[in-house]
Amino acid sequence: MTYGNRAEIRLQDIATASTTTKGVSRLPWTPEHRAALEHISRWMEIAGLEVTLDPAGTLVGSSPNSDGKPWLFLGSHQDSVPSGGRYDGIMGIALACLAAEALRDKVDAFPFALRVLAFADEEGFRFPTALIGPRALAGTLDPEALEMTDKDGMSMREAMNAFGLSDAGILDMVCDPAQAIGYLEAHIEQGPVLETAGHSVAAVSAICGISRFDVTVQGTTGHAGTVPMVGRNDALVAAGRAIARVSELAVARDVRATVGTLSIKPGAVNAIPSEVRLTLEVRSETDKSRAAFEAEVLAEMKRLAGEEGSTFHATRTYEQCATICDPALTKAMEKAIRDCGLGVKTIPSGATHDASAMADLCPVAMLFVRCRGGISHRPDEFASAADMDVAVRVLATAIEHLARGA
Amino acid sequence: MTYGNRAEIRLQDIATASTTTKGVSRLPWTPEHRAALEHISRWMEIAGLEVTLDPAGTLVGSSPNSDGKPWLFLGSHQDSVPSGGRYDGIMGIALACLAAEALRDKVDAFPFALRVLAFADEEGFRFPTALIGPRALAGTLDPEALEMTDKDGMSMREAMNAFGLSDAGILDMVCDPAQAIGYLEAHIEQGPVLETAGHSVAAVSAICGISRFDVTVQGTTGHAGTVPMVGRNDALVAAGRAIARVSELAVARDVRATVGTLSIKPGAVNAIPSEVRLTLEVRSETDKSRAAFEAEVLAEMKRLAGEEGSTFHATRTYEQCATICDPALTKAMEKAIRDCGLGVKTIPSGATHDASAMADLCPVAMLFVRCRGGISHRPDEFASAADMDVAVRVLATAIEHLARGA
Repeated sequence: MTYGNRAEIRLQDIATASTTTKGVSRLPWTPEHRAALEHISRWMEIAGLEVTLDPAGTLVGSSPNSDGKPWLFLGSHQDSVPSGGRYDGIMGIALACLAAEALRDKVDAFPFALRVLAFADEEGFRFPTALIGPRALAGTLDPEALEMTDKDGMSMREAMNAFGLSDAGILDMVCDPAQAIGYLEAHIEQGPVLETAGHSVAAVSAICGISRFDVTVQGTTGHAGTVPMVGRNDALVAAGRAIARVSELAVARDVRATVGTLSIKPGAVNAIPSEVRLTLEVRSETDKSRAAFEAEVLAEMKRLAGEEGSTFHATRTYEQCATICDPALTKAMEKAIRDCGLGVKTIPSGATHDASAMADLCPVAMLFVRCRGGISHRPDEFASAADMDVAVRVLATAIEHLARGA
Repeated sequence: MTYGNRAEIRLQDIATASTTTKGVSRLPWTPEHRAALEHISRWMEIAGLEVTLDPAGTLVGSSPNSDGKPWLFLGSHQDSVPSGGRYDGIMGIALACLAAEALRDKVDAFPFALRVLAFADEEGFRFPTALIGPRALAGTLDPEALEMTDKDGMSMREAMNAFGLSDAGILDMVCDPAQAIGYLEAHIEQGPVLETAGHSVAAVSAICGISRFDVTVQGTTGHAGTVPMVGRNDALVAAGRAIARVSELAVARDVRATVGTLSIKPGAVNAIPSEVRLTLEVRSETDKSRAAFEAEVLAEMKRLAGEEGSTFHATRTYEQCATICDPALTKAMEKAIRDCGLGVKTIPSGATHDASAMADLCPVAMLFVRCRGGISHRPDEFASAADMDVAVRVLATAIEHLARGA
């Protein structure tokens, strides 16, 4: 049985650690999280790792006899979105455990020890924050996050205490950067690029930075019958032109830009729209290209709104900087892909991952695994056993390259 | 005191026949309607007209001694939208009464008698239908309309009975077309054309026909970060291009076309829109130009959606044919405008009026009066005493032209 087949069976088993919904629903610091830790503990033990739970609820599997050697971290997150799939996050933990198992007899000779991290919370669904585990390790956790409450009014502090964790410990578990030589994370791509290009896996160049804006286009309403076309100031016509231009310009500038929500006032079949509110999201591999695009696209949207007679106002609501993957770690990953007999492909990650927060502690690299139809966060999320098998071999090979300093 | 000043005072007085809201709220077959009829009865009596209430709740003011002469109808509607203004509808009744008063000593010599009609219900707010009064006269009233209910569950039949009307009579009051030589209606423009052009009044060429469509643009959702721009099938980008094209094409083809509502699925800041639903409304002076525009614009929207990879589906939800104003009546109106020393302007009506339904009985013509900012259906709706004065004189002069057969 290949590593890929074993990964498939494990992911099928751990999918039962879920509330009873279509697809997998597993939030952090819940009974489902507890059930998942039972599975992951076994995976770690089979790999010969020593299992502990850290104060953030991260299950930690460490290679024994580390003798003060620095850590090479592997991992991903155990949680899912509600009615999510069987792969997002949890697959990265399963593949890390299998890669550690593959290296079980070699690891003592490495200049580093391996540590698999199964983070509690990456999706940020239960509480309005995320990445608690890696932030606690990197020392970037905002203590106020502990006071945030879930929909039932339970604070994160209370949830962690109820899970048997010490909330005092979470602020006192920062990892010494000198002890952290890197973090490798395998994850489904959650996009269609690998499927389209016919690749099983890809190295990741960077995790895109994100900007979000609330945009208001203000025109003038009027009766759709009595106001002639010439002289109208239709906020939706202005917004329509602007949205088309966002897409055109994003293609030309090689960034990703999306208008995902839009609402109209007054919103009647026979009333000219007076106001359009929409959200604009921009993602780019580099903060420089994102900043340049933002300036250009907002000016263009404003110009097009102005041509229609409408005013345009944009407010930034969110910003997250890009994470550049470490060149040396990524080179080891690319070399391992080649060694496994595959063509090398390196693509950016449009989504955020645990690696984004781990980058504040140590160099990071990622391996993307092809997923069917680019689908994620849905029950029909799927990665094949064959592709997962490739990913385990690539991870193990990359770690060997790093051990050799190659 | 001019007719315009008197109209202004009357409209101020009758505005108190309203529920206690900002602006005027007067629905048909209500105590407020009853209170309005007290005012209108006096206006009719001062004009020397004999006042009756017909089975539809239309207050009828007829010149006496008509001796079997056919009727020239004048009028408009007494009802308002909730929190509406002091002019929409009711001004046309006030001006008709003043024009009849101006002609009081001459009407016996005319080859027709005058009959002012104060219709109960044009706005269609209380029941999901409208134009009951003119339809009852024209014989186009659907008897099933009587069973429609208002928000309190009262049927139109019950509302009319409670108002003291015989619902049996409403289906038995059709006017003999041979006795109806025409219908003239003055109404505020409810649009900005006269104000922009600097005219007090205008003749109306036609009441636009209306088509409404529910449109669905279907694309493919995906993560706004992980799906590259190239290869996206973003339903909102497709819709945005289509909406811009609707506006362009409507300007070029001289019709009025409006996308007034729009909703998105899934509607998240970081999700590519998979589905856009919107409404398209088209209004045009002729049914031929409306049909030609519909075919062209729907094909264009479909083509643009297709370019984006999206499918396009449109369903017609409403159609109302155009009403061409009678050339002879309209010529008399234009001649009267000229005789009053004004430049002649003739424009289409984008909104529906009682004249639309009266056209099934007899030739119709309309006179539009300038309103401030094109505003209507709001408390700040306004037409000046000076413009209303012009309108009374134009109406009276037009009637004299018709009497002379000029």
